[in-house]
Amino acid sequence: MSVVSNTGAPTSDSIAVEPAVTDLPGHTIVLGETEPLELASGQRLGPFTVAYQTYGTLNADKSNAILLCHALTGDQYAAEAHPITGKPGWWDTIIGAGRPIDLDRYFVICINVLGGCMGTAGPKDINPKTGQRFGLDFPIITITDMVAAQKMVIDHLGIDKLFCVTGGSMGAMQVLEWAARYPERVFCAIPIAGAARHSAQNIAFHEVGRQAIMADPNWNGGNYYEQAESPHRGLAVARMAAHITYLSDSALHRKFGRELQDRTDVSYGFDADFQIESYLRHQGSTFVERFDANSYLFITRAMDYFDQAAEHDGVLANAFGDTPVRFCLISFTSDWLFPTAESRQIVHALNAVAASVSFVEIETDAGHDAFLLDEPEFFRILSGFLTGAAELRGLNGDKVAP
Amino acid sequence: MSVVSNTGAPTSDSIAVEPAVTDLPGHTIVLGETEPLELASGQRLGPFTVAYQTYGTLNADKSNAILLCHALTGDQYAAEAHPITGKPGWWDTIIGAGRPIDLDRYFVICINVLGGCMGTAGPKDINPKTGQRFGLDFPIITITDMVAAQKMVIDHLGIDKLFCVTGGSMGAMQVLEWAARYPERVFCAIPIAGAARHSAQNIAFHEVGRQAIMADPNWNGGNYYEQAESPHRGLAVARMAAHITYLSDSALHRKFGRELQDRTDVSYGFDADFQIESYLRHQGSTFVERFDANSYLFITRAMDYFDQAAEHDGVLANAFGDTPVRFCLISFTSDWLFPTAESRQIVHALNAVAASVSFVEIETDAGHDAFLLDEPEFFRILSGFLTGAAELRGLNGDKVAP
Repeated sequence: MSVVSNTGAPTSDSIAVEPAVTDLPGHTIVLGETEPLELASGQRLGPFTVAYQTYGTLNADKSNAILLCHALTGDQYAAEAHPITGKPGWWDTIIGAGRPIDLDRYFVICINVLGGCMGTAGPKDINPKTGQRFGLDFPIITITDMVAAQKMVIDHLGIDKLFCVTGGSMGAMQVLEWAARYPERVFCAIPIAGAARHSAQNIAFHEVGRQAIMADPNWNGGNYYEQAESPHRGLAVARMAAHITYLSDSALHRKFGRELQDRTDVSYGFDADFQIESYLRHQGSTFVERFDANSYLFITRAMDYFDQAAEHDGVLANAFGDTPVRFCLISFTSDWLFPTAESRQIVHALNAVAASVSFVEIETDAGHDAFLLDEPEFFRILSGFLTGAAELRGLNGDKVAP
Repeated sequence: MSVVSNTGAPTSDSIAVEPAVTDLPGHTIVLGETEPLELASGQRLGPFTVAYQTYGTLNADKSNAILLCHALTGDQYAAEAHPITGKPGWWDTIIGAGRPIDLDRYFVICINVLGGCMGTAGPKDINPKTGQRFGLDFPIITITDMVAAQKMVIDHLGIDKLFCVTGGSMGAMQVLEWAARYPERVFCAIPIAGAARHSAQNIAFHEVGRQAIMADPNWNGGNYYEQAESPHRGLAVARMAAHITYLSDSALHRKFGRELQDRTDVSYGFDADFQIESYLRHQGSTFVERFDANSYLFITRAMDYFDQAAEHDGVLANAFGDTPVRFCLISFTSDWLFPTAESRQIVHALNAVAASVSFVEIETDAGHDAFLLDEPEFFRILSGFLTGAAELRGLNGDKVAP
């Protein structure tokens, strides 16, 4: 087992990050040039680049902005073809004219998280002090740090108050952190399939993924960027293990069961006899084309470290005292990675501070991934809550002038 | 992803297996010398060695024998210190004078499965035709094959009818196969935390483990026995992933939660900050000392292939028509790897053929591993059912003469 400490102590006050890739579509902004970002670790970051994407039109009083927070392996391309895979954006079915996040009404911002690999500063970027890629010398990032960097983008866009912050899974963690840290900047918050802290089981699955990456000799202590081979095999195994946790037992049974792949009988060997094996191998091998193994380490670590109660004297409600934010929490019955009980704990904490909270558990067998799928009841809830909140916010339903 | 076909076609009629290790404690027997074992794959095996262990005393009419079927990574050392790890046997708390499997009354046999690595023929053994280790040229083994080899041992011991066949997890699969294939040879059967077929989710987790092993360059297509390095990193990752599935979310929360390991604050790095990480790494690194990576491939494959209904025209009940066997099925509420629903399906099939069936779901948060733990209600059920069956069998409760 590889055990590696993060020892990238900067020689000056702040860690500057130079992007390794600059030809991705969408917006970028350089932040922390005059005032570095103080990270939870105590390190200071800046200047550094953040990449983001927007959809729709910001209205004149800048009151119709929805910030989408993406999940572990997501990115800013929420509602357009992905520049590497060509596949539709991860919330393509939810964002658009007449869809729950209606681009005739709302302006959508989606920001690649700190530590990521799609244009925002992360371990594959270059340390200008050495001219080398950071790898494990990149500072450890937390959910709080991701959100702090997002707030710098929102400040830059001149948006005083986001109409809504929403996202699923790790996205929900960011939503909760936005509501806790910057309550005056958020009108409503929709954390979906989330939790206020990462559970032991979830840390365990993340640790397996990290160990799979670190066990790959091509990982090479994180210094693989100049090698011919990247740790694709380890990263694929990590993705395969994680992917199982995104689905439910019954969804796997419904979709694959024990059906064989392109054969009428088992091979009596180690081919992908079963469809589920073939599917998982495909998930692993396509993931490595678009994701950086070190980013996987850093972002899983950010999730593991997330524990809002711990940051507030062990009392989750203390994170949300007197909050003006209107909350809508959504969970899915078959989600065993972020089960309903986790959302319920947040609801209890919000109730304890008399916050405005809606909570809906949606019946589905799709597991954690339900928040990315075409789930009609989920769409109705999302659409309905947003419409109600928009009325309260004075977004009168007129189309925004293009 | 490595994809490897099993192409070990023998040049003669039968595949002979020469043990690579012969100094383990316990019994061994050479089988298939005159009549090879016909495997489910159509290949023929023999001669081959089977290693087993016994505890207690066989009575005069050989009616008090309990066959224990071990789980995926178990072995024949059920009730004594393990010869490699020195740890207590996997059912040490259940077997012994005055314990549920009372050695004053019963004679216990436990046989290392075909494909294993503790003395019974498996991929680490030598192919006498080549003088080389088999590796992936070892024939693919099924649960049926394991049970067929066990029956040859029971024949050798002169036992016409086993008093009981029992085991948990993969052991339960063997119990069911014993009852289906050799009903006249089994008085009672206790499948614990089992299933009559391996689910899509379970195949998926096994496939992740296999891919982790095959992704390790030291695996080398299964030919690592003469190398300095074995695929320990891949096998450790496989074990870590599997180990999570043996526990429950709530047990992990109870045992570890988000407690830190030997520190008061997170390291902001990739050390094992959390106790659960340290525990998992330990599980991985100790496992590789006692288990062969290729055996892990073969035995997980045997479980994946298990589907009793498919072997009986898609109707599970057909596997048990007119069975004289008395069944007691046991499941555990928090077991999500072999959930109660799987046991219930078997109960329904047995009800359909009017078999004698008891079924108990035991309340525990210990997950699948509950069958290996000190669970008082489980012990009471096991002990009670065995005592009742022993009366029916005419085992009058007297101690067996030593």
